[in-house]
Amino acid sequence: MTRLQKEDFSSWYLQTIQQAELMSYSEVRGCIVFRPDGFELWERIQAEVDAYLREEDIRNVYFPMLIPKSYFMKEAEHVEGFAPELPWVTSVGEEELEEPYALRPTSETMIGKSFHEWIKSYRDLPYEINQWANVFRWEKRTLPFSRTSEFLWHEGHTAHADEADARRRTLHVLNFYVKMLEEFLAIPVHAGQKTPSERFAGAVDTFSIEAMMKDGKAVQAGTSHYLGTKFAEAFDIKYLNQENQHTYVHTTSWAVSTRLIGAIIMVHGDEKGLVLPPKIAPTQVILTPVGPWKKEPKILETLHGIQSELKAADLRVRLDDSDSTPGFKFNKWEQKGAALRIELGPRDFDQKQFILKMRDLDTKETHLLDHLTPSFIQQKLDQMHDRLLINAQNFARENEHLTVETLADLKNHIKTCEEKQEIPGFVLIGWDGSEETESRIKEETGFTTRNIPFDPPIKKKYDLVSGKPAKHTVWIARAY
Amino acid sequence: MTRLQKEDFSSWYLQTIQQAELMSYSEVRGCIVFRPDGFELWERIQAEVDAYLREEDIRNVYFPMLIPKSYFMKEAEHVEGFAPELPWVTSVGEEELEEPYALRPTSETMIGKSFHEWIKSYRDLPYEINQWANVFRWEKRTLPFSRTSEFLWHEGHTAHADEADARRRTLHVLNFYVKMLEEFLAIPVHAGQKTPSERFAGAVDTFSIEAMMKDGKAVQAGTSHYLGTKFAEAFDIKYLNQENQHTYVHTTSWAVSTRLIGAIIMVHGDEKGLVLPPKIAPTQVILTPVGPWKKEPKILETLHGIQSELKAADLRVRLDDSDSTPGFKFNKWEQKGAALRIELGPRDFDQKQFILKMRDLDTKETHLLDHLTPSFIQQKLDQMHDRLLINAQNFARENEHLTVETLADLKNHIKTCEEKQEIPGFVLIGWDGSEETESRIKEETGFTTRNIPFDPPIKKKYDLVSGKPAKHTVWIARAY
Repeated sequence: MTRLQKEDFSSWYLQTIQQAELMSYSEVRGCIVFRPDGFELWERIQAEVDAYLREEDIRNVYFPMLIPKSYFMKEAEHVEGFAPELPWVTSVGEEELEEPYALRPTSETMIGKSFHEWIKSYRDLPYEINQWANVFRWEKRTLPFSRTSEFLWHEGHTAHADEADARRRTLHVLNFYVKMLEEFLAIPVHAGQKTPSERFAGAVDTFSIEAMMKDGKAVQAGTSHYLGTKFAEAFDIKYLNQENQHTYVHTTSWAVSTRLIGAIIMVHGDEKGLVLPPKIAPTQVILTPVGPWKKEPKILETLHGIQSELKAADLRVRLDDSDSTPGFKFNKWEQKGAALRIELGPRDFDQKQFILKMRDLDTKETHLLDHLTPSFIQQKLDQMHDRLLINAQNFARENEHLTVETLADLKNHIKTCEEKQEIPGFVLIGWDGSEETESRIKEETGFTTRNIPFDPPIKKKYDLVSGKPAKHTVWIARAY
Repeated sequence: MTRLQKEDFSSWYLQTIQQAELMSYSEVRGCIVFRPDGFELWERIQAEVDAYLREEDIRNVYFPMLIPKSYFMKEAEHVEGFAPELPWVTSVGEEELEEPYALRPTSETMIGKSFHEWIKSYRDLPYEINQWANVFRWEKRTLPFSRTSEFLWHEGHTAHADEADARRRTLHVLNFYVKMLEEFLAIPVHAGQKTPSERFAGAVDTFSIEAMMKDGKAVQAGTSHYLGTKFAEAFDIKYLNQENQHTYVHTTSWAVSTRLIGAIIMVHGDEKGLVLPPKIAPTQVILTPVGPWKKEPKILETLHGIQSELKAADLRVRLDDSDSTPGFKFNKWEQKGAALRIELGPRDFDQKQFILKMRDLDTKETHLLDHLTPSFIQQKLDQMHDRLLINAQNFARENEHLTVETLADLKNHIKTCEEKQEIPGFVLIGWDGSEETESRIKEETGFTTRNIPFDPPIKKKYDLVSGKPAKHTVWIARAY
């Protein structure tokens, strides 16, 4: 077996997503084509988010993608944060535009304008909407799914009567993200607050969930922002309160993006290719005839019967009756992350049994054909989900380092990891709240503050760099 | 009752979509904001199209929105057709791009590039995919939902081994569109072939469905194109056939867009506002307490019970327990196109009955509360769908004119309609196949050829303008 994942994670990643036919490169800088299996992962995430939104009575809308230049100018921090990455539409056909339009990097400004128009009274609050959209951020370094010039996301935007209600929504969404990642994507995360230097441009407070990839680097997998009254002031979003006073609303915004697809692959994938949590796998069950099956029509007949039965129970099942060898098929569907494989050949059939292979386990199991029911298969898939989550939790715990006290310790830790070919992972540090500490760490180690976790495993007492008393306990890591 | 719809259809339309809160204007030229009720109409159309795609095993993908300028240059007719309407991204941040990108008006070129890469052998064919996307066409005159600079659509793209298979898919999709419009949107259409001058830029054959609005104008509600080998030649899309020869594929593309929302409104709406086909209405049932209901808690209790029961049966039901008067509420929910209203007050309650009002009928009905079940409501909604379709069919038939033989006849028909304040509707004409006939008609009457229907009610013998023998029988009309 190759050791590409261990030895060159980045090459492994690029090879895996292409062999699995999740994407193709395009000639548009930093943009990719989402092929069917790649896009289906996104569609399944969409369905989970939409279910949350429905439950919360937050409805979908759609805003123009083009944002007039003047809109960005209204919120100073916002424009400063996004300006270098904005693509500009300057002409149509042969004609120059009077005012250029930016391709949206996010929609706070556009939506602020409409909130101003729609929100009148306390009776309209909270005002909560969501948009599914393509957004653009022309970043220097790009990586398929993880960081692309164009990506897909949902962006929730809400307006509230006061800070408490806005903060309630901000955290409620963050909790939903935590739950979705664990229960649906089998990805454990650390939820917490971003440091001021890592906040969303224009936010009062940014909260994030941070996940550890198999190379130890972090992916910021979802964010939720409390925007205070900043956008309300920039776009004059006021409501008449119960005392008949015009009052600024408090707004929030929150998002997960197609970057989650990158996280799924980097958390669960192995040397053979994709490993997909069964709840999201486009192929949950792959049926493969083996042995001299072409001479025995009953093999294919039986597999067709199994396929129909599992399909009827809403399982995503495919039958590979191509001419390729069993070995080729096993390999192909392992690369593509099919969760469960059923092999059936004449010899098994005569013994009224079949072979079952879970994607994440090395061993094969033999079962009686009589036991092959949708609920049996569902149980196997559920168990696989649990294993993937536990494995990812264990992996994260093993690579979280809690006893690094000084910058020298940190450098030493990184050096030791490099020598042993181990991953440096996440490091928990004390922080005095200064930007100086953050920039020193970043310059000297490439580690950045991920977040201030709500539930740190321990509380750190002293700042990693200054040695001063710590105000916060913070996760730091290298990040995508 | 106002007669705005009759007297000024265009003002009626703009007033209706705003009062119903389907959309808001934006400051981006020709772009609108889809508000929740407007976007939900689109989400329901999406679900219908996705169900067709699933049945046909056509999977969703996503391509970059930006298209390099050089791509357009590869298919001459295509670039000529779209060039004047293309918005261009020419810079990012402060930097000029070397090659500008167009915002996609459609994705044949982008997808052609990928088909070249993905399609190798006859075993890969047919290769069929679909994309949900925002697209841009900077048209001179815009109208919300109907013709906007940015709009949403799905675009199916397929590649086939030969012309016959490609044409089969082209028409199969068109038939699905016919069925969807009738069975889901209660809109009758004429399916047929576009004349060469009205073809999609780069198509060999374009087929369309054309619907009549209440002002007699046509909406091209869906199109399906047979593209021959034009894009295959432009993008070198070849496959190895069973004789081991490299052969060009035959491609198709097809789409419906958010323009369908405009059609729904203009086919069914009335003087009071929106009338929505029940299968697509965001509010199928509106519950309104009436009379001195606040003094009798059992009224609201009963309505809450009804709401739960109908919701559990997947009916889309809302309860309006605001402080407004019943008259205000009736008006509001009629404007918004709620399909069915249930009124309940203390007097009804004492008599164990409730009032039912269908949006499309003038009369109220009284029923026993015991009869209020989900299946009873569903039956009422199904009957409303049938009525809307029959009404639209009757309206179309009454405004289709089959006996216009010459250009003088046509002008006379239009003049008569103007005098009588009637709508000129659709006119069936004979056509010798010349562009001259089409342009004379357009210049002198504003009518354009809609399509050559597959099943014309009669066959016309002579060209409307030239008097020469007709090659085709064609629907003409003024169009959105």
